[in-house]
Amino acid sequence: MTEPSPTEAAADPRPAGLSRRRLLGALGAGTAGVLAAGAAGGVIGRATADDAPAAAGPAPTDAVPFHGEHQAGIVTPAQDRLHFVALDVTTDDREELAQLLRDWTAAARRMTAGQDAGPDGAVGGSEWAPPDDTGEAIGLPASGLTLTVGFGPTLFTTADGRDRFGLAARRPAPLVELPAFPGDQIDPAISGGDLCIQACANDPQVAVHAVRNLVRIGAGVVSVRWSQLGFGRTSSTSTAQATPRNLFGFKDGTDNLKAENGSALDRFVWVGDGDADWLRGGSYLVTRRIRMLVEPWDSSPLREQELTIGRAKGSGAPLGQRAEFDPVDFTKQVDGEFAVPETSHVFLAHPTNSGTAILRRGYSFVDGTDGLGRLDAGLFFIAFQKDPETGFVQVQRNLRLDAMNEYVRHTSSAVFACPPGVRDDADWWGRALLEG
Amino acid sequence: MTEPSPTEAAADPRPAGLSRRRLLGALGAGTAGVLAAGAAGGVIGRATADDAPAAAGPAPTDAVPFHGEHQAGIVTPAQDRLHFVALDVTTDDREELAQLLRDWTAAARRMTAGQDAGPDGAVGGSEWAPPDDTGEAIGLPASGLTLTVGFGPTLFTTADGRDRFGLAARRPAPLVELPAFPGDQIDPAISGGDLCIQACANDPQVAVHAVRNLVRIGAGVVSVRWSQLGFGRTSSTSTAQATPRNLFGFKDGTDNLKAENGSALDRFVWVGDGDADWLRGGSYLVTRRIRMLVEPWDSSPLREQELTIGRAKGSGAPLGQRAEFDPVDFTKQVDGEFAVPETSHVFLAHPTNSGTAILRRGYSFVDGTDGLGRLDAGLFFIAFQKDPETGFVQVQRNLRLDAMNEYVRHTSSAVFACPPGVRDDADWWGRALLEG
Repeated sequence: MTEPSPTEAAADPRPAGLSRRRLLGALGAGTAGVLAAGAAGGVIGRATADDAPAAAGPAPTDAVPFHGEHQAGIVTPAQDRLHFVALDVTTDDREELAQLLRDWTAAARRMTAGQDAGPDGAVGGSEWAPPDDTGEAIGLPASGLTLTVGFGPTLFTTADGRDRFGLAARRPAPLVELPAFPGDQIDPAISGGDLCIQACANDPQVAVHAVRNLVRIGAGVVSVRWSQLGFGRTSSTSTAQATPRNLFGFKDGTDNLKAENGSALDRFVWVGDGDADWLRGGSYLVTRRIRMLVEPWDSSPLREQELTIGRAKGSGAPLGQRAEFDPVDFTKQVDGEFAVPETSHVFLAHPTNSGTAILRRGYSFVDGTDGLGRLDAGLFFIAFQKDPETGFVQVQRNLRLDAMNEYVRHTSSAVFACPPGVRDDADWWGRALLEG
Repeated sequence: MTEPSPTEAAADPRPAGLSRRRLLGALGAGTAGVLAAGAAGGVIGRATADDAPAAAGPAPTDAVPFHGEHQAGIVTPAQDRLHFVALDVTTDDREELAQLLRDWTAAARRMTAGQDAGPDGAVGGSEWAPPDDTGEAIGLPASGLTLTVGFGPTLFTTADGRDRFGLAARRPAPLVELPAFPGDQIDPAISGGDLCIQACANDPQVAVHAVRNLVRIGAGVVSVRWSQLGFGRTSSTSTAQATPRNLFGFKDGTDNLKAENGSALDRFVWVGDGDADWLRGGSYLVTRRIRMLVEPWDSSPLREQELTIGRAKGSGAPLGQRAEFDPVDFTKQVDGEFAVPETSHVFLAHPTNSGTAILRRGYSFVDGTDGLGRLDAGLFFIAFQKDPETGFVQVQRNLRLDAMNEYVRHTSSAVFACPPGVRDDADWWGRALLEG
């Protein structure tokens, strides 16, 4: 809605005053209304009067409650480590799938509480049977572990149109494969998947242990399609957290949606009425493995880096402002130039100009070397939103002219519908979908 | 010396009483003498009367001193995270190589103290020049960062016999490529290298930042050959540390050499007289990427796992004993069977039977998925020793019949000579080699 048309953009990649005013002028109407308030009185990522007070975060070793209205691991203050895994279902038996989700729920309930995956544990069962826990987390605390499950489009209808579990009619309309974007270099082998598990914890051994045990429990029913480890969360998801830095060396996520933004979360993150009933209280998860070309970035001047991002590298302040949380001022000029360039990442990604907001929860990664003498490093981008089309897709389309595109390549892509939280001991992930 | 011959082994993979007594009977002579004392009065990994008292470990955020007789990162209490990188030198100019090592030393001296890589830092220089630090560690403490450098055989003589830097005559005799071992599945693309940097820290962002900045400084002189991230150190290297668990769920490194074993370190780890002068006070580093087949492991019974390792999974006690640090008793029988099977990993790897000792300093890894629905996970094995032939090679040869071989595959291999420590501000890594 607020984008220049492709024709305008091609003719004038950095439109000056008029276009910018036109962008800002659009803010009075439609979805941009709430965002305009954000731009005037603060930013969307900061708590406002109608928000819940910021809770004191748990200690890094504490357990995060598993039961709740929403799944943990979405607005939970982002932990430091990630193990994300996408899986394909190898059975055609709907009841086997349902039983797996029951078994996974039981194991997740235990492991997020800091217990072994099964009741016998790593060493408590028969010595002539395989243990019901793999043991590498013995003695480690819960470490803030959250496990978040999602269902991919192919669980409902396979690529060749087959309704293997009788779920095609229950596919939520927004759960479709993401469109291709200009510049995409997507590798299908590390994209998509019938199911996903996002494991976050403050100890990588705890996150890896959880995924490994869920995969073990799923033997014969699911097969790992791809997996990704991450470290150094690249977005705060709570006002109680300091903003971390990504591998470009910049603070990342200053204006992210946060756990304390109650009304904005209902508006932009949680599925409500008007979508599939079984998904109410859930959210859509988009992942993008974004390779960052750190070598050319590291050889570019500081000023170019800052103009590319739109923030000062040291303080994280929007260009033209003084402090990190100062509002981005799109009208401010310095020496006759707009302080925040219209091709900067902050300009284009900011809710004011993208016309929407998403909850980002990404992690940095280094996956060794690319065979050409360069580190294979970047950002494993994770975003939660009420609808992928008005969330990630809308933001990403608005980044078409992003100056940062020169330094990044999207190499994997996936989308999942994450069901609501597990309510109690009798409930399980996806129950409303598979029993409904 | 203490191994059964291949013929004996093939005929009787689990020799009973006689062979075992023969093994133990050999302990009175030669290098095994010191080890026999270990087996009788304790184990090689525990402090004995002639050892230095255990120092209180630094806090996880503290700096580790960079200057010293030995490089840090060898007997330094093992930090929690690893970024290891092997590089090839792309110049033929010896002075460019020397200048790189000077520049690396200066940057390492700064970064291990918790400072930016260069004096201007990430944001303090000219805004029209690339920063001399990449910025992602701004605000993070030193986090126990150590940087340890090594020189591969190919730095001295290339595979085709060329003496590109005039160093061939200075190659230490023990610095030769490792031999092939039965069962090896080595991928040359992730093996070897002219140089290596081992970065260990208690924050992965700090370790990655250090490697990335050293690679940036080396642009045009070196190229990254391969790199490996690791987490969850799998060996204690100090008596002050609890023994961690590897991805088989077992405590690993109970009997490892430790920082407090002063006399054993001189005997087994540090290069002394009789090797290249420039290497005195240094050590040889061997790396092996060991894929662990966790899926078959996880489906094997607890008892089989324990017989494979030779320890109890819960306590870590040697089989037949009660507590983790009880000595391994190779003579103890339970129900007419030796408690510790002769094909168990502990039996074969133990100093008593391998006739030597190494300082292990490995890390767990998960590198995604192998394309067959399995986690690509395992142990990135790192060992330091006075001589690879009487260190890792001797131990590994003794593992030929190790029952654990069924569950592991070695997929990369490398060996490096690590020079002694940098003594002061005027010294630099490899100075005695390149100026000598």
